[in-house]
Amino acid sequence: MARLVMKFGGTSVADIDRIRNVAHHVKREVDAGHEVAVVVSAMAGKTNELVAWCRAASPMHDAREYDAVVAAGEQVTSGLLAITLEGMGIDARSWQGWQLPILTSDAHASARILDINGAELIKRFKERKQVAVISGFQGIHKDTGRITTLGRGGSDTSAVAIAAAIQADRCDIYTDVDGVYTTDPRVVPRARRMDKIAFEEMLEFASLGAKVLQVRSVELGMVHKVKIFVRSSFDKPEDIDPHGTPPGTLICDEEDIVEQQVVTGIAFSKDEAQISVRHVPDRPGIAAAIFGPLAEASINVDMIVQNVSADNATTDLTFTVPASDYQRSLDVLGKSKSAIGFDRIDGATDVAKVSVIGIGMRSHAGVAADAFKALAGRNINIRAITTSEIKFSVLIDAAYTELAVRTLHSLYGLDK
Amino acid sequence: MARLVMKFGGTSVADIDRIRNVAHHVKREVDAGHEVAVVVSAMAGKTNELVAWCRAASPMHDAREYDAVVAAGEQVTSGLLAITLEGMGIDARSWQGWQLPILTSDAHASARILDINGAELIKRFKERKQVAVISGFQGIHKDTGRITTLGRGGSDTSAVAIAAAIQADRCDIYTDVDGVYTTDPRVVPRARRMDKIAFEEMLEFASLGAKVLQVRSVELGMVHKVKIFVRSSFDKPEDIDPHGTPPGTLICDEEDIVEQQVVTGIAFSKDEAQISVRHVPDRPGIAAAIFGPLAEASINVDMIVQNVSADNATTDLTFTVPASDYQRSLDVLGKSKSAIGFDRIDGATDVAKVSVIGIGMRSHAGVAADAFKALAGRNINIRAITTSEIKFSVLIDAAYTELAVRTLHSLYGLDK
Repeated sequence: MARLVMKFGGTSVADIDRIRNVAHHVKREVDAGHEVAVVVSAMAGKTNELVAWCRAASPMHDAREYDAVVAAGEQVTSGLLAITLEGMGIDARSWQGWQLPILTSDAHASARILDINGAELIKRFKERKQVAVISGFQGIHKDTGRITTLGRGGSDTSAVAIAAAIQADRCDIYTDVDGVYTTDPRVVPRARRMDKIAFEEMLEFASLGAKVLQVRSVELGMVHKVKIFVRSSFDKPEDIDPHGTPPGTLICDEEDIVEQQVVTGIAFSKDEAQISVRHVPDRPGIAAAIFGPLAEASINVDMIVQNVSADNATTDLTFTVPASDYQRSLDVLGKSKSAIGFDRIDGATDVAKVSVIGIGMRSHAGVAADAFKALAGRNINIRAITTSEIKFSVLIDAAYTELAVRTLHSLYGLDK
Repeated sequence: MARLVMKFGGTSVADIDRIRNVAHHVKREVDAGHEVAVVVSAMAGKTNELVAWCRAASPMHDAREYDAVVAAGEQVTSGLLAITLEGMGIDARSWQGWQLPILTSDAHASARILDINGAELIKRFKERKQVAVISGFQGIHKDTGRITTLGRGGSDTSAVAIAAAIQADRCDIYTDVDGVYTTDPRVVPRARRMDKIAFEEMLEFASLGAKVLQVRSVELGMVHKVKIFVRSSFDKPEDIDPHGTPPGTLICDEEDIVEQQVVTGIAFSKDEAQISVRHVPDRPGIAAAIFGPLAEASINVDMIVQNVSADNATTDLTFTVPASDYQRSLDVLGKSKSAIGFDRIDGATDVAKVSVIGIGMRSHAGVAADAFKALAGRNINIRAITTSEIKFSVLIDAAYTELAVRTLHSLYGLDK
């Protein structure tokens, strides 16, 4: 007997037939004797519809009202799944964020979960094997009692937080892919599904644009040591042996992975834009002068490269922003031109970031050097480089993205 | 300065444009200096969609889950209207049933309001003139903390209950007709809109099938002395003088109506079926033997006519049920044939009930006798008669409904 959280996204609950399919997945685990909490998203398309209405009502809408509106999507799905489960003879009930409660911060539309009381759920597991069907994505602000939501992909975070609160043995994320791959299989057909990946690595993957899981759900899993299992919601429930090992990827502690490879996978993102600020005075506070206004405009700056100046007077500073924020970034910097004192700004939107990830890098030298050599061998020019303990990223011309990813995927022995 | 509740139904909030129109109605009252609480239904069609999903999920669905699903409709509308009002520069916030809270009984899907705490709303009126936008139709069960709904048309009841809780000067029900008419204008083109009608009379109208207001909302208004004003939501907000007297019908206390007429209006219903149980033994308990099983089957029995038996041995008993329950009623009675001991059952579904309503009847004799004479003059046969203090009803062949209504409408001087 195990205690499981099962999370299903919008595609998996898009209509009554798919909700019934989800119910069969749940029934399988219940029949196997497990205690089950299910976390559901809104039906596919519903959140978009509700968001569009909010925007049409007023472009500058109150985030607290936005949250009340969009949270209705998950409320509908949790009730419908509970009804479906009960129709199959399974004791179940729905829980809204405010009912458990799932207490959050007051950052409406992107609130953080502060506390979840799992006692009532555990009591009901023990007393009557009741399945808890919980609305993902939503919570309640601890002081005001108003509905909050966690931001896009927030149901993943709900699921992992609930798994932590009820000390679940595993948090199964049912999604439209059957696990986490060494890189995007559409780019590299020889990409492999990983059986296991460490939290730290998954964090890099998620941050770098692999859209399998919301970043915060991985952070939460790491902090609370919740085993997260990414698996396919398209497998037929009746084909799955509840006592066997289904296909999927387990996101777990580093020490739970016996054979750790040096490089785990290659991530990439084409939604990047590069901005180079030329000949800025090389004085204390110059970075703050540049990045302060960008932060105030809520522009997410990623790779930052600043070289030591050759003349001790001026330097060039290069960084990347999301491509969608490129023009806005130029505008913000243009307004601060006199405060920063730069000469000119160069920019490019046809750039891509390719990242090599692996915990093993910590103890292996020369991993990045191998990459630089291989890319040079393909005549791929590297515009900028950043590194962290367990990954390094290169900024290249977007046209070479696929070639670079394939080259590195082979280089580190990740091909099937 | 007055304190107002404004209630808008599903047609009035069917899309963002209409919600904006509602916001203009609200703005008009706010600009006139009034304190305003708005009660909204779900967007037209949404509740039906949610109900259909519940049925598709499981035909025998849990009413508690049904309530969680359908209450989402009002949640969306209240948030969208609050956003729209804020976009027009009006301080507003949405309130769900569980937030105020609106405490109800545990009769899920047809719960009764037990208590509403209006203190927070009044505080916000006083402190900042904030408009309260409240989800109609929904509440929370006082013990379990689960979402409840009030049944179809429940938003009317929400509005009147909130008006009572905040001691509103008036509860405006915006609807697709501009008031309560002496009878259905589609049947009698000379029907008049009443300026005022007493609660007791409106209760009869609502019970007898005039679908302007939910019956319970009128009961609540009567008990708490809430003035209910039925008016059109199609009037352009800018055409209305907030200090003038708009067209509509005020439902109020009998003593607030100066010139009380003997007959106020004529109601009718064609959704009736007549059942006559022939030659039942005339003994104590026979009515219970017949109506007990019908009540257990949740069949709503209306007119009941039992004559004193001529031979002190057997009697005939006639009553009406909704036409949709006719066949089921026959089945239920058939099963109890030996317990009741009747000879045979006659029935008819092509019957209609025509009712004459007026508080003045209390003090005027011969009102019904005039009707019987007038109907006889038209060769309309009366199948059964029931009376109460302020109304009487006749059961006739359905084919004569319109003729009977027009005849009575003229008889009592109700024509324009």
